[in-house]
Amino acid sequence: MTVEPSRMLRADAEQNRARILEVARETFAELGLDVSMAEIARRTGVGTATLYRRFPTKEALVTDVFADRISACVATIDDAVADPDPWRGFCGFLEKICALQASDKGFTEAFVAAFPGALDYADKRERVEPEFTELTARAKAAGKLRADFAFGDLAMLFMANCGIIAANTAHAEAASRRFVAYMIQSFRAENAEPLPPATPFELPNFWDSSSPG
Amino acid sequence: MTVEPSRMLRADAEQNRARILEVARETFAELGLDVSMAEIARRTGVGTATLYRRFPTKEALVTDVFADRISACVATIDDAVADPDPWRGFCGFLEKICALQASDKGFTEAFVAAFPGALDYADKRERVEPEFTELTARAKAAGKLRADFAFGDLAMLFMANCGIIAANTAHAEAASRRFVAYMIQSFRAENAEPLPPATPFELPNFWDSSSPG
Repeated sequence: MTVEPSRMLRADAEQNRARILEVARETFAELGLDVSMAEIARRTGVGTATLYRRFPTKEALVTDVFADRISACVATIDDAVADPDPWRGFCGFLEKICALQASDKGFTEAFVAAFPGALDYADKRERVEPEFTELTARAKAAGKLRADFAFGDLAMLFMANCGIIAANTAHAEAASRRFVAYMIQSFRAENAEPLPPATPFELPNFWDSSSPG
Repeated sequence: MTVEPSRMLRADAEQNRARILEVARETFAELGLDVSMAEIARRTGVGTATLYRRFPTKEALVTDVFADRISACVATIDDAVADPDPWRGFCGFLEKICALQASDKGFTEAFVAAFPGALDYADKRERVEPEFTELTARAKAAGKLRADFAFGDLAMLFMANCGIIAANTAHAEAASRRFVAYMIQSFRAENAEPLPPATPFELPNFWDSSSPG
């Protein structure tokens, strides 16, 4: 059996790309987002020209590295919506995305880093939002989730958990687990007290005004 | 009336020091912690030799800039302990320190920056801990604060709030206010549910392994 050369080239390119993403993720985790493209090329064992052919800018590379991780977060919403108990699905979703954040400090540190700028998560949000909205509507209808829980509270929880993980203390993962348990209690409909107004769903913006090297 | 020259010199040195701290705080707020000592000297209008005479290392400068801010947080504990209603004092303290964090993004960003290293807050902790312990003991005795609230939960809240503020979204301050209200509800003794184990009180460590220029 023979494989046509163009298909082999495509397979090589695919492996190359996957390897760059893997090395870039490890490197960002170790050194933070301001590592140079040259360093990532060196660690991957490819020339910088090859790296720039796959990822024309560092923003493009970072976006792809993160997109992968964010997709893993997104996948957990499917499990949550499939749960016949909407409150259990809701709580499980929050626990899982927060544990996923906690397990990858590189991603989390990058996420909260003091970098100016913007990565494009709009497509992910368009997928998550209707599913999460359905999940919360069912949990509210079941009388378990407080009626004033807002979509923006999910971003609030996500950012708060980032802060705990980014602190990078010896017990950050345990603190994150306890934190999520506290938040879930505050989201319960029972004995809910009035809150300050909800805020829109917002994730941090990277590279707003400048672009790292 | 005459002033002795040595007293004038001391007054000059004090003004100089205050001015350096003010400029350094603004510069850290604007550019982050990795700004050079030379840049801070330039903005203050003093020679680098003078800057280094006052602050032998950048760690020393950053510690003093932060100590000032942390002292403002510490002062709020006195008001809280003085409140005849321990639950109101407890909630007010949490609201005030979180609002203080939210009002100074430079401090908060520096606090959660991906810098390796350690600033010495031990003396501040030694002052806050007994007062906060007294406040929580009284709020628990009054049946308002859940019995399993731990001192480490204060650091957890502080780091989580940092994460919300550091995200630097358009509604970060409003998100912080809503977040603190959620957390206070989860700290109420009423209907408290079991939690994962508490973690020790830990603040992030800066400069663990390297020292910026």
